[in-house]
Amino acid sequence: MINKELIDPKSIVVVGGSNNIQKPGGKVLKNLIDGNFKGDLYVTNPKETLVQGIKCYQSPAELPDVDLAIIAIAAQYVPATVELLAQLKNTKAFIILSAGFSEVEGNEEGKIFEKEIVESINNVNGSLIGPNCIGIITPNHNSVFTLPIPKLAVKGCSLISGSGATACFIIESGIPKGLTFSSVFSVGNSAQMGVEEILKFMDETYDPENSADIKLLYIENIDKPQMLLKHASSLIRKGCEIAAIKAGSSEAGIRAASSHTGALASSDLAVDALFRKAGIVRCYSREELISVASVFMHKRLKGKNIAIISHAGGPAVMLTDALSKGGLEVPHIDGLAANELLEKLNPGSSVGNPIDFLATGTAEQLGTIIDYVDEKFDNIDGMIVIFGTPGLYKIFDVYEFLDKKMKTAKKPIYPVLPSIETAKDEVTEFISKGRINFPDEVALGYALAKVFYTPEPAPEKIVLPEVNRKTIRKVIDNTNEGYLSPAGIQELLDAAGISRVSEAIAKTKADAEKFASELGFPVVMKVVGPIHKSDVDGVVLDIIDIETAGEEFDRMMKIKDTSAVLIQPMLSGVELFAGAKYEPKFGHLILCGLGGIFIEVLKDVKAGLSPLSLEEARNMIKNLSAYKIIKGIRGQEGVNEEKFAETIVRVSALLEAAPEIIELDINPLLGNMEKVVAVDARIRINHKN
Amino acid sequence: MINKELIDPKSIVVVGGSNNIQKPGGKVLKNLIDGNFKGDLYVTNPKETLVQGIKCYQSPAELPDVDLAIIAIAAQYVPATVELLAQLKNTKAFIILSAGFSEVEGNEEGKIFEKEIVESINNVNGSLIGPNCIGIITPNHNSVFTLPIPKLAVKGCSLISGSGATACFIIESGIPKGLTFSSVFSVGNSAQMGVEEILKFMDETYDPENSADIKLLYIENIDKPQMLLKHASSLIRKGCEIAAIKAGSSEAGIRAASSHTGALASSDLAVDALFRKAGIVRCYSREELISVASVFMHKRLKGKNIAIISHAGGPAVMLTDALSKGGLEVPHIDGLAANELLEKLNPGSSVGNPIDFLATGTAEQLGTIIDYVDEKFDNIDGMIVIFGTPGLYKIFDVYEFLDKKMKTAKKPIYPVLPSIETAKDEVTEFISKGRINFPDEVALGYALAKVFYTPEPAPEKIVLPEVNRKTIRKVIDNTNEGYLSPAGIQELLDAAGISRVSEAIAKTKADAEKFASELGFPVVMKVVGPIHKSDVDGVVLDIIDIETAGEEFDRMMKIKDTSAVLIQPMLSGVELFAGAKYEPKFGHLILCGLGGIFIEVLKDVKAGLSPLSLEEARNMIKNLSAYKIIKGIRGQEGVNEEKFAETIVRVSALLEAAPEIIELDINPLLGNMEKVVAVDARIRINHKN
Repeated sequence: MINKELIDPKSIVVVGGSNNIQKPGGKVLKNLIDGNFKGDLYVTNPKETLVQGIKCYQSPAELPDVDLAIIAIAAQYVPATVELLAQLKNTKAFIILSAGFSEVEGNEEGKIFEKEIVESINNVNGSLIGPNCIGIITPNHNSVFTLPIPKLAVKGCSLISGSGATACFIIESGIPKGLTFSSVFSVGNSAQMGVEEILKFMDETYDPENSADIKLLYIENIDKPQMLLKHASSLIRKGCEIAAIKAGSSEAGIRAASSHTGALASSDLAVDALFRKAGIVRCYSREELISVASVFMHKRLKGKNIAIISHAGGPAVMLTDALSKGGLEVPHIDGLAANELLEKLNPGSSVGNPIDFLATGTAEQLGTIIDYVDEKFDNIDGMIVIFGTPGLYKIFDVYEFLDKKMKTAKKPIYPVLPSIETAKDEVTEFISKGRINFPDEVALGYALAKVFYTPEPAPEKIVLPEVNRKTIRKVIDNTNEGYLSPAGIQELLDAAGISRVSEAIAKTKADAEKFASELGFPVVMKVVGPIHKSDVDGVVLDIIDIETAGEEFDRMMKIKDTSAVLIQPMLSGVELFAGAKYEPKFGHLILCGLGGIFIEVLKDVKAGLSPLSLEEARNMIKNLSAYKIIKGIRGQEGVNEEKFAETIVRVSALLEAAPEIIELDINPLLGNMEKVVAVDARIRINHKN
Repeated sequence: MINKELIDPKSIVVVGGSNNIQKPGGKVLKNLIDGNFKGDLYVTNPKETLVQGIKCYQSPAELPDVDLAIIAIAAQYVPATVELLAQLKNTKAFIILSAGFSEVEGNEEGKIFEKEIVESINNVNGSLIGPNCIGIITPNHNSVFTLPIPKLAVKGCSLISGSGATACFIIESGIPKGLTFSSVFSVGNSAQMGVEEILKFMDETYDPENSADIKLLYIENIDKPQMLLKHASSLIRKGCEIAAIKAGSSEAGIRAASSHTGALASSDLAVDALFRKAGIVRCYSREELISVASVFMHKRLKGKNIAIISHAGGPAVMLTDALSKGGLEVPHIDGLAANELLEKLNPGSSVGNPIDFLATGTAEQLGTIIDYVDEKFDNIDGMIVIFGTPGLYKIFDVYEFLDKKMKTAKKPIYPVLPSIETAKDEVTEFISKGRINFPDEVALGYALAKVFYTPEPAPEKIVLPEVNRKTIRKVIDNTNEGYLSPAGIQELLDAAGISRVSEAIAKTKADAEKFASELGFPVVMKVVGPIHKSDVDGVVLDIIDIETAGEEFDRMMKIKDTSAVLIQPMLSGVELFAGAKYEPKFGHLILCGLGGIFIEVLKDVKAGLSPLSLEEARNMIKNLSAYKIIKGIRGQEGVNEEKFAETIVRVSALLEAAPEIIELDINPLLGNMEKVVAVDARIRINHKN
């Protein structure tokens, strides 16, 4: 519901404008004036006639029509003022800086005020930022009451933040590195619009020429995950890049975030799955967000092979370590062209990668190296140039060469200029050309790897495998809340096309003996009834004859809650699992991993948001820590990955047909090179879902 | 071999001093003059009579006696100059800035020069820094040719670097945060003294009053690991704190480091083990080193419970996440005192931890909160204060209060002042009082956790369990190079007091059947001869009767290289392993972990340097990713940790008695709550060791 009046208003009123620039109402006016707002600027304040040189109205009622109102008065006066402006002054956009609304726990009056405000604004199809925010910055107006105001550039970063102070501090981190911004939105209480709506607006109005391509988000609470997913992935498909901090990623952090925003935070597994599906690069600190944003501001890295060009060995080694840990490579460079390059450098230089052209290396040599890497070293996809100074002379010429080469090179060049004190003037001049500095090579290395390995967004339309919807609905609709019966589970798995082990349920000893013989020894027997079968000694493997089968049946039927015994042939393969759980607002999370200790001890689980594409399922499998076991180790048979991936997407298809399933756990799922087969499963249903 | 003449010379000559301050010989003189060197300063240069206002001698031969010579002339002239100064001018300390020596691959002449120089200096018991270095900074003289020259403070950090440019860049990272230094040593080619010798000197001359307590190291090549271990741990035992970057921690990084220093880097596992044993905090980037050093500059954190005091919610949440991931806690604060505190803050504040006193929070409120945390909240060990500014007014008063409270509080207080642009003046004033700023809360969180969880140095004297040294020596001395026989292994394990499974070796079918019966079914049978027994199908588990034992014997004897069959009772327990390998210069690395996939797929191995204390062994076990399995999961029996730890230190004791063992692998080592027993082992011997 963002409108033109918010982004590019013809007129703005500061309600509660003040001569005291230590107050929000004074400072926001000063920022508007300093930012040379081109339209008409009004102020209201009952006690003044002139505020910061601008005519002041004593009451909003006296104002002419005005597009955007910035409100900085006490909470209790806001509802009436908003209603007046909306109804009588044709005001279509509001930024409410004032606090004292729903953000204060137990403030029932504030909650009502906030509701009234939203209603008044919705009634005129207006847009609202806040309350309890620092405001917004667009190319047309600096409507924030805070500093710093960053340098704006059309192709700078758009910053959308769920916390005003954090937005300021993110900008503080970015400015010294030269990062520019195109707009800043602080959504405060998100009474009408939160981070999700701003992103939606950016998606719907995206224009490759004039829109920012880089979005940075700070989020504490994802209220509308599906909206975030839709518009983030859409923007990325259009060529944008998005990085986000979702604070509250640990249990303690979730508690801290809840006390800050008052909202319950989502499970971190769901957040991770959402970000991966959307193609958002997830960050955990302001510095990391700025490093990733700075990587975004350069040409895209198309492969994982990096050349490090440095006049100092140490940082090149630390950077090599960092790239290598992140999964990028610093491949050896040799051959004729390499020898040719070496001859153009000072004695003692090396070109094997890192390319070290020594403390005595010159600007021209740097240029030559960049040309060789760009044009002649085909095994290199991008380069990192490290150049500081020991302080003997000025190095303006080096950075000038660097800037020039960055303009013409086909491969991305990332500059690390570490001498931020000694070469302050040179770094400042470099930045003034619109360039960005990475002061720490290792931070760059990690950020570059993170960006490179963040997956593309999942396809817009995900085609799930066909399932027998009719049967699935029949089973679900005829089932009570709670855990599904073994027969129901079998029907659902069959209807979803998930292979399962043949099995039979015995209620008498005679049946147990008969079924075991028919299925073929060795068999496995499991109690029907108890949830945690192993814990009650309700699973016996490798039963090799009819007598044992009969004896075990008798023993098992005595276990508490046991109503029957399930018999299956004993299969061999790697113990896998596939599962799902429902996450409020996010939908279903599909999980996969290896069984046993891998889940229980190592928490080696990957999650994706349903509906899941085959490609996403493949990536989940490949990203497991125990992936090597799936590939097969030391002569042991591995798992048919395609079949495992298919099982995972079939779980997703089952859930799309039966969203009432709030918990699904196929464990173990046995996999070998031939097939992947469900051996045991548990499904829980909630009809309210 | 560092002497007084190097640290506090009465006179210094710059050989090759110049009026051109863009040259090392000019710049180092300028830095000496700017640094107000108090002694006599001489210059030699054949072409000048006056250099930077100082009388210039045309030849070193004309000089009076001089304590310290800083040499900045071409490599080929250095040996004669050094010899002259050492023999005729009573010069006892040398800093050679010139390059062109052993650092250039294939420069045989340079290598000889370097050797000659070291000999000349050793002959007069002199000390040498370099060649190919940037020099040193002590409280008495700035003998570097580079910038920046950091602010010196008696209790600042001592920086010792194997790379000159990296030392400069580390200082560049530290200055904006307010980090101070007490001395800087760039060791260059380490011809006479490397990082290890500087540390040794610092240890031997340590004086709690006047020595720096914080040492920062940048190392690419650990040439003398035992010297490093001895003096680093000794310094830490005396109350110092040490952080170090050892670059070249990845395979690609090791290659890069080797091409930079020309030396082969050590295995990273050995470096990690050395650092842990010494109590050194290992860092991977300049920024991280500075963060850790900044933590060191504060009072020590004595427990893991942190209070976060912030006027902004977002950074507090991100910090909570970071602390929590690092293993520190942000415990809930409540009770009477908490309620009392809440009443003193603005409405809407929260004290549950994070303590959020809102954007309107004042300096006095900050003071009150700090007092409460320091005096009344007993469950808190340290506090982090986050305070920036939205730019409405100056916040000098807040930082003044913060500085005052930091002086008096008993608990450590770490300041995060994020508004480095908007509150530049205030941050600068805070820093000018000797304070340090952590501009990014998450970087602080990780650094704090890293420091807190770095173990204390191992005891100086490690008492190993007693072993039968006589038997061990007998076995080793009577054995050829290569793999030890099963009988020899049994003897060694018994002599070392390492429990092993009872076993018998059968060379005939009749023996196999007899031994199997005697040991008791079920038994395990393994081929004797082949190294990778499983790969050749040479291990059979769970043999339950005499017939199968006989059949398997016949089958196994046909396997290539098989000379006999080993029979053991089949034991149950968790599959562990303990092992050792010899690492050149470092000595023996003792390894432990879980067997099977844990080693092969997950590389879940911990290493310690021999001799190993019981406490170190316990920590190795506790730090395994699969530690939960050792504790016992889901009703499964765990492992007797004390017995496992004892086995590990007995391996260490065995190696101390038999350093010729270059490889030892007890795998599997079966563990349950009662005992830990070696089932199979492999030992390789090299008599040259």
